[in-house]
Amino acid sequence: MTTLNETHDAQLRSWVASAHATGTDFPIQNLPLAVFRRRGSTEPLRGGVAIGDQIVDLAELAQARPFSGRAAEALAAGSQGTLNALMALGPAHWSALRLALSRALREGAYEQAVMQVCLVPQAQVEYALPARIGDYTDFYTSIYHATNVGRLFRPDNPLMPNYKWVPIGYHGRASSVVISGQNFARPCGQLKAPDAAAPVLGASRRLDIELELGVFIGQANALGEPVPMAEAEDHVFGICLLNDWSARDIQGWEYQPLGPFLSKNFATTISPWIVTLEALAPYRVAFERPAGDPAPLPYLDSAHNQSAGAFDIQLSVGLQTPRMRAQDARAEATICRTSYRHAYWTVAQMVTHHSVGGCNLQPGDLLGTGTLSGPTPDQAGALLELTTGGKHPIQLPGGEARTFLEDGDAVVLRGWCEKAGHARIGFGECRGQVLPARML
Amino acid sequence: MTTLNETHDAQLRSWVASAHATGTDFPIQNLPLAVFRRRGSTEPLRGGVAIGDQIVDLAELAQARPFSGRAAEALAAGSQGTLNALMALGPAHWSALRLALSRALREGAYEQAVMQVCLVPQAQVEYALPARIGDYTDFYTSIYHATNVGRLFRPDNPLMPNYKWVPIGYHGRASSVVISGQNFARPCGQLKAPDAAAPVLGASRRLDIELELGVFIGQANALGEPVPMAEAEDHVFGICLLNDWSARDIQGWEYQPLGPFLSKNFATTISPWIVTLEALAPYRVAFERPAGDPAPLPYLDSAHNQSAGAFDIQLSVGLQTPRMRAQDARAEATICRTSYRHAYWTVAQMVTHHSVGGCNLQPGDLLGTGTLSGPTPDQAGALLELTTGGKHPIQLPGGEARTFLEDGDAVVLRGWCEKAGHARIGFGECRGQVLPARML
Repeated sequence: MTTLNETHDAQLRSWVASAHATGTDFPIQNLPLAVFRRRGSTEPLRGGVAIGDQIVDLAELAQARPFSGRAAEALAAGSQGTLNALMALGPAHWSALRLALSRALREGAYEQAVMQVCLVPQAQVEYALPARIGDYTDFYTSIYHATNVGRLFRPDNPLMPNYKWVPIGYHGRASSVVISGQNFARPCGQLKAPDAAAPVLGASRRLDIELELGVFIGQANALGEPVPMAEAEDHVFGICLLNDWSARDIQGWEYQPLGPFLSKNFATTISPWIVTLEALAPYRVAFERPAGDPAPLPYLDSAHNQSAGAFDIQLSVGLQTPRMRAQDARAEATICRTSYRHAYWTVAQMVTHHSVGGCNLQPGDLLGTGTLSGPTPDQAGALLELTTGGKHPIQLPGGEARTFLEDGDAVVLRGWCEKAGHARIGFGECRGQVLPARML
Repeated sequence: MTTLNETHDAQLRSWVASAHATGTDFPIQNLPLAVFRRRGSTEPLRGGVAIGDQIVDLAELAQARPFSGRAAEALAAGSQGTLNALMALGPAHWSALRLALSRALREGAYEQAVMQVCLVPQAQVEYALPARIGDYTDFYTSIYHATNVGRLFRPDNPLMPNYKWVPIGYHGRASSVVISGQNFARPCGQLKAPDAAAPVLGASRRLDIELELGVFIGQANALGEPVPMAEAEDHVFGICLLNDWSARDIQGWEYQPLGPFLSKNFATTISPWIVTLEALAPYRVAFERPAGDPAPLPYLDSAHNQSAGAFDIQLSVGLQTPRMRAQDARAEATICRTSYRHAYWTVAQMVTHHSVGGCNLQPGDLLGTGTLSGPTPDQAGALLELTTGGKHPIQLPGGEARTFLEDGDAVVLRGWCEKAGHARIGFGECRGQVLPARML
């Protein structure tokens, strides 16, 4: 992937004033993509790029034909109701569109007039899934999560022998991936108490979150043609926030021997905004395996991956109970703070491993990182870990406590990157609220 | 679902002579659907219905507007390049199209002239996937398979405690579902010998088949709205053959704790023809749980399911080695014969269980039954079982033997129904051939 340092320059200033607001997720150095329409309208869905508190409407902009070459082709693809066509074009096109938009949004840009009429306030839109997701795969890349959860299920053998060799993943459910803000009913399923003779059908009582990032696949690889590490990131369009809601009681009873099923397929929430790898380039960091751990097999290793394969994306989980909401619509308690840098397997390793047996990844496919727990207890990305399997409730401001989620609870994931000498960029929010169960 | 006994009548005769050929899979009582085009042409894909050795080209037929009402709507939907739109219409439309086609294909039908020009010989076409498959789920409905495989992995505890309560399933890979006749490379992946200190990347040496049926979902249920047993079959468009190729060595090393991944996602082959539940109605049978087994939980039980929830579909697996092929292009050895009637969970139970937590099933989604091993050793639907984990090779005519598949081996699944007083109907073939591995 071409690295365009020009678009990262912390000195760049946009003629969109809100792009300079303190704490904004969307300065001109970010330029993430989403799919949206004006709220309540019947206009077709279209791609958009965030700048400050505005969105550049790519469908409107495409009609003005402000760009040429690859940027124009990418703009046309991005104006559609899903980003699949843009994703399929590949990194040279993504990069050209980013550069053209960056230049057109800078102070003094001659495109300001044509761009100005394509801006829509974020406060006035509704978002949709950014892509038609053909397949959703969930990985398990946090060794801390794997160990914490393993300890609950298998105290004597918390980490499986394959963990340090295999980027463990499994196929998830694509149809139930929903966009931030779409609420969902608490799932029902078979529940069996350890001492019960038989299971019963009931609403989950151990409904959990999983703090993850989602990786959107860009250009495809053909069936039977694995993607080597050196090319893996050329197949990655960008990264979003992902909450892989999980019903731990359903999971515990159903998961052997073939893995999670109904415990995960009732809803998976993603953020509307996809942050590109180019925008994230300044925040790349080395991942050094702990001393004594085996080196990855050669097909999963590269010098670039060792030196800069990881991303230092800061992550947080906010919980808002109904009682908090009644007092202040914006109140919430932060129950986790961590970074993606602690993951044991990188984005490139996920792509290469997924395809090594010949599996074809397609534009719009979604890879979850798995729960991104960090090394300390307050960095755990799931209530299962934060409460030690539901045994030690977390205490919330105002005297409330939680083991698992209760009806009406809302959860907000956030992600951002910051570093001296660079503009802070963010992912926006990934929000979902639990509605009461609907029994069959 | 309306049962139209008229279309099952064994006395019905078609003006298409080959529909009466001995052993044909496609008499007028069947009328399965596929997507095809004339081989080597650039014409758009379109739906078709099999009759004898011919196909009714639904796109051609739709232009003649021979039907009215629901049959006409279904015909228009079925003329597209995937059957998703037809699937979405629901059982009243499927039934109307079936009845209209049955009447138009009978001896003496006044539609004969208009139908005649829409016939294409099956020998002159190429097939495509019948639907855009949004999600593929694989179940595990044969208790014999679960027990046989469980015994190999866990001799002291072959059947998990959840098996008789939960229709176990897991999410599979939709992108790598391919149509019969599309060959595929032997997959590579991590292999680890039990006594090896570390895994290596290599071509699978334990490549296996799984004899399954595939269930195509028709009309959708919305996210959060489970499908009760009484309505489950209204959501099923029909059934095809499915071979869920599996790399047992990759599977053994990767599958804990989240289930199969690369061991299954390199290829899954389905037959082009989808046989509707209406065509299968005469072959419904009771499933009686063995004495002493628990009754299904109420949400998975119904009187109809007990009396007629299962289907007596005969199944066989043919293996053709390169040496056999060199002597006779049609030579093969039958290595398994069984029936779908032995499955422990029915089609309706799969649909209801899949949706009970709120998961939305969409038109074109595919459910695999899991390997359909019967109660006796020669009824096992996977080489893993037929060879007791690779320990006892199966002997083939001409002195060859196999534990797992070798390069150049082709496997053909077949399915059919027959019963006194009824016309025999069949599923055609589901064929795939193993090509040499392509290393990364």
